[in-house]
Amino acid sequence: MSSFKQGPHKLLVIPGPIEVSDEVLFANAHPSVAHTSAEFVPVFGDCIRMMRWEGQPFIVSGSGTLGWDMVASNLVEVGESALVLHSGYFADSFAECLETYGAHVDQVKAEVGRAVALGDVKAALSAKKYKVVTLTHVDTSTGKESFTLLCVLSDIKAVSEVVRKVSPETLIVLDGVCSVASEEIRMDAWGIDVVLTASQKGLGTPPGLSILVASLRAIKVFETRSTPVSSYYASWKKWLPIMKAYESGAGAYFATPPVNLIYAFNASLKQITRGSVSLEDRFRMHREASQKVKAAVTQLGLKQLPIDPACAANGMTAIYFPEGVAASAVIPVLSSKGIVVAGGLHKSCKDKYFRIGHMGITVVQPERGDIDKLIQGLRETFGQK
Amino acid sequence: MSSFKQGPHKLLVIPGPIEVSDEVLFANAHPSVAHTSAEFVPVFGDCIRMMRWEGQPFIVSGSGTLGWDMVASNLVEVGESALVLHSGYFADSFAECLETYGAHVDQVKAEVGRAVALGDVKAALSAKKYKVVTLTHVDTSTGKESFTLLCVLSDIKAVSEVVRKVSPETLIVLDGVCSVASEEIRMDAWGIDVVLTASQKGLGTPPGLSILVASLRAIKVFETRSTPVSSYYASWKKWLPIMKAYESGAGAYFATPPVNLIYAFNASLKQITRGSVSLEDRFRMHREASQKVKAAVTQLGLKQLPIDPACAANGMTAIYFPEGVAASAVIPVLSSKGIVVAGGLHKSCKDKYFRIGHMGITVVQPERGDIDKLIQGLRETFGQK
Repeated sequence: MSSFKQGPHKLLVIPGPIEVSDEVLFANAHPSVAHTSAEFVPVFGDCIRMMRWEGQPFIVSGSGTLGWDMVASNLVEVGESALVLHSGYFADSFAECLETYGAHVDQVKAEVGRAVALGDVKAALSAKKYKVVTLTHVDTSTGKESFTLLCVLSDIKAVSEVVRKVSPETLIVLDGVCSVASEEIRMDAWGIDVVLTASQKGLGTPPGLSILVASLRAIKVFETRSTPVSSYYASWKKWLPIMKAYESGAGAYFATPPVNLIYAFNASLKQITRGSVSLEDRFRMHREASQKVKAAVTQLGLKQLPIDPACAANGMTAIYFPEGVAASAVIPVLSSKGIVVAGGLHKSCKDKYFRIGHMGITVVQPERGDIDKLIQGLRETFGQK
Repeated sequence: MSSFKQGPHKLLVIPGPIEVSDEVLFANAHPSVAHTSAEFVPVFGDCIRMMRWEGQPFIVSGSGTLGWDMVASNLVEVGESALVLHSGYFADSFAECLETYGAHVDQVKAEVGRAVALGDVKAALSAKKYKVVTLTHVDTSTGKESFTLLCVLSDIKAVSEVVRKVSPETLIVLDGVCSVASEEIRMDAWGIDVVLTASQKGLGTPPGLSILVASLRAIKVFETRSTPVSSYYASWKKWLPIMKAYESGAGAYFATPPVNLIYAFNASLKQITRGSVSLEDRFRMHREASQKVKAAVTQLGLKQLPIDPACAANGMTAIYFPEGVAASAVIPVLSSKGIVVAGGLHKSCKDKYFRIGHMGITVVQPERGDIDKLIQGLRETFGQK
């Protein structure tokens, strides 16, 4: 444990990047090390082992977006069909990525602010054969008319049951960019074939790692494809031997791994998997922190979304600006109190709502006081002055 | 300037990652910041501006390898032809990447340990029309029989003149992964359309950034292509608006940028472009350090490659193990003296030679004493005990 302390800074409570611990940042400042050295290989190997529990991990230099390319170019062949369960903004992009690599994409769209209806999923899978079905765990719902963006939590378990029953061969792909390590995910038990995410959300590491875990079934589908993989950088043909080498204790080269970020990821994974808070407690604490924030927001008379709490994400909260209150009267005011929240992703809705992220150490280290500071800031900003 | 000092560690003199300054590592440990915040936008914007001098920069989360995908998927359309000037290992991979995205690839192969012959380039370009010609600035030559790997420096200026004369419309793409900021490159004056590189070589930043600069001519070719870009994550259609937004002072979103690495890159670029050493002095110092290392190696009776000094890289030195001396009698011995050098890239040649990198602060901060320490270590290891 080092004595490194990050400097004073505003509390970052956006849906990623999130607050990162001193240990993780110090690891990110590790002196340069050779990527195939005896010193580094076990550090990378440990990351793979810590992510391996339910499948084959891929840890690749890139943003979360790259995970879509991995799915589209390794698991779907040109001309095959993909079903995108559309609950918002990120589903649109995943669909576009799949089409880029030659998939035929159909979409089942959710109502605004809701998760996709299971009956619709069933009907789609009964009508046509799909190679993959994709699902965004926490999406920001995009209503066509109002362009409202909400934080919608999909019920993966229920969706997975439907897929397994109606179309058992279809691979189930979960975009967990905004959910891994803050929402419960059981790959094996729920029958999920791919979970993809990024380092800067619940995993508590600076951005720059695309992280994906594939079931052995998915790897088998990849290995038995009949056409070449349609991407070079995202190709598992390149990455699988690298992951296997590092996990087995040997260095290997396809592209230089982001050494410092791997040190940082290792430090964060150790805190998550071997720290004093169990994974079960971790998810419970995220649920409780989320309820605390949402209750405070309700108490302030603010409208939040989704209205149905059953599909509300536990790692973030989306709040409408009150009628007549501009974004400029909220976001900079919170910032002046040392609290950074996020506006909308698109200009067209920036003035309608803002988003708060509550993940990682902000939640599992209550002694930091982050949640209390956030709620106090909201109270001071909205009326209870 | 911070007072952060990295811990004691072995001197890393491989062809990347290289030694990184305390300021750069401290920047990599920056507290989490929102990627579209007023605090971060100018930091990213400055990086783009500092790289912009001769074209449109792309700074993307990924390894150097991703630069090949950017070229192959944005500049070459399916069925078009690419000419790969093959001087070694990395040219093989670039060719494979181009083929992955549908290009027809022809290669002009160099003799082992030499750069490609200009006459051969001329002949190839006269016989067929190519959309792009690619050239690896510093490659590790791969001889088929002996699999010797050497450090070969291509004469880009001479190649470029031939291309411009014989096939003026062909785009000239330079893989400068092992050369940018340690070898002289004049994009405009020499008529190069794309220079691609990574953060962890001459640019003195931890690995994790794919960096590419495209000429306005290349951007025009991209903008007027008739088929969609064949990659999603590497698509300039996605990245160009992002780069333009950050450069103009506004945040924009396609994928979360690797915020901490951008802070680190910013710190390193400032040292490179605004430090006390001019770019001209920088290149001169790399040439001089290279000559110093190579002269010491010669003095020790060691055989190095390439034999022709005119095509020897200035950022690295490749040395054959003397007859009867095993790699295990050299690399671990140097390591025990606190000096880390690199073996071969492939198992098949690991026992034949080793590589030394001399780039960045190891060269331009002689007060560190890195080069002297390296030479002393070599002397102690090879005979002059």
